[in-house]
Amino acid sequence: MQTWDAITARRNVRAFADRPIPAGDLDRILEAGRRAPSSQNWQPWDFVLVTDRPQLAELSQVFSGAYHVAQSAATIAIVGPSADNPFRRAQFDLGQAALSMAIAAADLGIGSCHAGVADMALARRVLGLPADRDWVILLSLGYPADRPLTPVRNPKRRPLDEVVHRGHW
Amino acid sequence: MQTWDAITARRNVRAFADRPIPAGDLDRILEAGRRAPSSQNWQPWDFVLVTDRPQLAELSQVFSGAYHVAQSAATIAIVGPSADNPFRRAQFDLGQAALSMAIAAADLGIGSCHAGVADMALARRVLGLPADRDWVILLSLGYPADRPLTPVRNPKRRPLDEVVHRGHW
Repeated sequence: MQTWDAITARRNVRAFADRPIPAGDLDRILEAGRRAPSSQNWQPWDFVLVTDRPQLAELSQVFSGAYHVAQSAATIAIVGPSADNPFRRAQFDLGQAALSMAIAAADLGIGSCHAGVADMALARRVLGLPADRDWVILLSLGYPADRPLTPVRNPKRRPLDEVVHRGHW
Repeated sequence: MQTWDAITARRNVRAFADRPIPAGDLDRILEAGRRAPSSQNWQPWDFVLVTDRPQLAELSQVFSGAYHVAQSAATIAIVGPSADNPFRRAQFDLGQAALSMAIAAADLGIGSCHAGVADMALARRVLGLPADRDWVILLSLGYPADRPLTPVRNPKRRPLDEVVHRGHW
């Protein structure tokens, strides 16, 4: 797919078809995350790939807004360091990795949706996270149940003229 | 450009050719940022587009690592809400917007590099930011001075097998 089509076709998908994602495609999505830029190239992320149905169901319980994880073909848990890491930051770079994977997925016709984690203890248990990792964002993946991904003409966003300031705010 | 080529060709570029970016291409990059996903679609970003050479030089003084802003063809200041915003978060979503713009730029052969801000007071003055905005990340843009963007075969990153955990950490 052309880049602009993938960027504009990417949308949050929360209802997935019962169809697995080929292993090679999952690896490509993960590779897109690995390649993301980060502050001083510190790469503060680890990715836990979950494809087991019972595990996905359990993982979906970490937050009410993560229900879509249960029926996803796969979910990538994007794991960051604890909040008191030496840099005192990580979320910005985790966001860069997440979006890189979402665009790589869209390029393959795969929908995605990110979700936060409210019950960190449960996430820690389901994913087997070490004690020094405190931040997790989930990225559910799957083929859309409704309609294939195609470029969205008018996304539900603030208008460009409102978002963009030229020269000065 | 094909999506995978744009994702893999994107690299941090800090030395730019003395060549302006067409206005339509800048708008396309900004549009890619506007389309980024965010928590509950709150879109916590504003983008200040700077193309004036003296202003770019001044803006580059906000942090030692932002020197590349001075010679960029354009720099987009990605502005977020104050840290005590109701959500208590924004950086993850600003990261998503930044990477969306970086990939859209790479698709056009345009290099980019993000930089943090140490002197927020200076950034506030140069950009004319309102008092309730506290977070700024700069994304410098321009055609690479060295060589065109082409897919990077072996990026300087932790190996995929180290970053990816399958099933459990």
